Amino acid sequence: MNGAARIDAERVITDLGELARRTSDERGSQRLCWTEAWSDARNLLCELLAEIGLEAETDEAGNLWARLDGEDPKPGAVVVGSHVDSVPDGGPLDGALGVMAAIGVLRAYADQAPPRSLVFVDWADEEGARFGLSLFGSSAFADTLDTSAAAELRDSDGRTMREVLAENGVEIERAHECAARREGLAAYLELHIEQGPVLEAEGVTVAPVTGCQGIERLRFNFTGQTAHAGTTPMTMRRDAGVAAAALAVRIAELPADHGGVATTGELRLEPGISTAVAGTSHLTCDLRNPEVDGLSAMLHDARGAARGSASAHGCEVAEEPIFRIAPTAFDPDLVAAAKEVCQGVTGDDAFTITSGALHDAASASGVMPAAMIFCPSRGGLSHTVDEDTCHDDLCAAIECFGALVETVLAK
Amino acid sequence: MNGAARIDAERVITDLGELARRTSDERGSQRLCWTEAWSDARNLLCELLAEIGLEAETDEAGNLWARLDGEDPKPGAVVVGSHVDSVPDGGPLDGALGVMAAIGVLRAYADQAPPRSLVFVDWADEEGARFGLSLFGSSAFADTLDTSAAAELRDSDGRTMREVLAENGVEIERAHECAARREGLAAYLELHIEQGPVLEAEGVTVAPVTGCQGIERLRFNFTGQTAHAGTTPMTMRRDAGVAAAALAVRIAELPADHGGVATTGELRLEPGISTAVAGTSHLTCDLRNPEVDGLSAMLHDARGAARGSASAHGCEVAEEPIFRIAPTAFDPDLVAAAKEVCQGVTGDDAFTITSGALHDAASASGVMPAAMIFCPSRGGLSHTVDEDTCHDDLCAAIECFGALVETVLAK
Repeated sequence: MNGAARIDAERVITDLGELARRTSDERGSQRLCWTEAWSDARNLLCELLAEIGLEAETDEAGNLWARLDGEDPKPGAVVVGSHVDSVPDGGPLDGALGVMAAIGVLRAYADQAPPRSLVFVDWADEEGARFGLSLFGSSAFADTLDTSAAAELRDSDGRTMREVLAENGVEIERAHECAARREGLAAYLELHIEQGPVLEAEGVTVAPVTGCQGIERLRFNFTGQTAHAGTTPMTMRRDAGVAAAALAVRIAELPADHGGVATTGELRLEPGISTAVAGTSHLTCDLRNPEVDGLSAMLHDARGAARGSASAHGCEVAEEPIFRIAPTAFDPDLVAAAKEVCQGVTGDDAFTITSGALHDAASASGVMPAAMIFCPSRGGLSHTVDEDTCHDDLCAAIECFGALVETVLAK
Repeated sequence: MNGAARIDAERVITDLGELARRTSDERGSQRLCWTEAWSDARNLLCELLAEIGLEAETDEAGNLWARLDGEDPKPGAVVVGSHVDSVPDGGPLDGALGVMAAIGVLRAYADQAPPRSLVFVDWADEEGARFGLSLFGSSAFADTLDTSAAAELRDSDGRTMREVLAENGVEIERAHECAARREGLAAYLELHIEQGPVLEAEGVTVAPVTGCQGIERLRFNFTGQTAHAGTTPMTMRRDAGVAAAALAVRIAELPADHGGVATTGELRLEPGISTAVAGTSHLTCDLRNPEVDGLSAMLHDARGAARGSASAHGCEVAEEPIFRIAPTAFDPDLVAAAKEVCQGVTGDDAFTITSGALHDAASASGVMPAAMIFCPSRGGLSHTVDEDTCHDDLCAAIECFGALVETVLAK
């Protein structure tokens, strides 16, 4: 290793600009996976890799890979990557920052072989914005994907995931075969924006991520009795709307008892008119906690509160599962290494953060040591055209990521 | 008066059957005002009136009138009526019972002039189901209708009320001219189903109505900040959904303090997805109380609770008026007369009830003494094909209404 292997942060930022130019409009990034704009983004990645002499290849799940062989036949390669797909009207940095920084790392070693092999990956369909299934490519790689269930998912045009992926050269039932690529990989490192307000509020430029919160996401469906708003005495009502509202209030209090965060972002009443007591209601409950026990206690209390609220309002309540994932703790050695490089950049004791959002690193960490680095999101905004990180923070984070890879390559 | 003037309840029920046959389908009554089915219903009314030698005429607001002259030139005529329009997929009795009973009363006097003149009215568009404006015809008659605002209301096809009424021969800006028909009218009497569960629960066959509850209907619009469900700490949230939910819970408690009923039947969150804190929310609040002071106290407390909930959740709240009407107390003498005839039918002390729903009688009572009689609604159901009242209760209520008219005509 010498100074010539340092990552060129300005070039990474230039590449992000070119990506935005090719795949965004005034409403934001349009790299919805399995679309033409996403394919345009992939073409840019291939051009950038070709520029440093690398040829990219796509696996059975649609993930894009490239490999830079190391000078030493050490057994374990280091994987760097993220996802280039975006939500509709998304931001310029979510996923794209990590992908361009990963290419920046490979570029830094293009003229001098790294100590171990360096592997680049752009995971397919991290966002799940089209079929509602997050982490498609990375969960296929970790073999935690139910491909037959995924195949039948439909987009808003009613087309199945099987059909759309087939047009993109992916036979969904074979997606898990990409897991064979795990062989010989020793670590996974990913740079990402925080997508939340914590680092900005703390005045932190760059931070090691200790893991991803676990999620319990479900829907509580209350059944009461639709009734006339004027003629039905309060004591004779079975108000599914008030039952759900009372549960929403209680769920917002759960983090005070158990840590984590709790959100009830979707609440629908039927018939949903001002002059009728709601006969049915549907409340989603998204619980997140970095600790297994904390998450489990939140779910237990939410269920108890749902039963209590239903009973108090003369309603029935049923539970509909939506999504769940256990808390992920990243590899302690890699997190410690990330902490050290972040301290080197910030000069302070490194602030550590648990990711509230899901990331491909959560999939990868199931099958190899993994870690992430976060940089701040201005105003905590993400999934919007207003998503941004100031230039200095971007540079610091990219350099920090480069230094982390350097450290891990040397281990 | 002699026995021959007694109302024929079975014939009234037969007429209701014929109306249902002509204007209903398997989903219920389809007499939405200003439609062909409603016009078919009106044609039946005209046929029934013609059968007893009366010619019907339509006023400037689309109300249908017929007059049976009295034997005595006493100054005040007695008006009997209700509305033949229904909500879509409505029930067979809401409005129709009162209209057919009113015709039944005129039929009873067809061969012997009543002591005073008897006037029949079928009010236009009581339900307001198409343009969202209740009591159109009766409020035009009472001159409490803002015709220029009404003219611009649009139905779900985007057509204005002005345009649709013009096709039905009604020039909406002239609707209030029908108020001239108030001259020489001394009392208004209406038979209606309860549309609620109280009489059934109390085991009451027929009851005098003391008045209609006043209504304050408004929407509270909360503005917070949309945020990521995973990355936004609870302490940094401005959750408009939880703010509205907490208000809904509080509003449901207001009747315990002030009487009346309170309903929050419409609650919409935006963006309304499980993985985002709601940035805005819209909660309707429908407050009803038979007492002016009680209604005013409910509104005061609801507003205070809205401000408190907004403040507790870091949101702003704005108020959007929807509808308001003061409590209506029916004429004490007419209510006493109704109580007496109900006692005659039930044998018991008459149970009295305040209407939770609005009725044309509330409009009429602003310009002349008015009163109503209610019969039970099975299961409290109304505005549905399942709306029903058992045959015996229907007969008792129709006969009671006939007796009330007889009493008032004799005054």
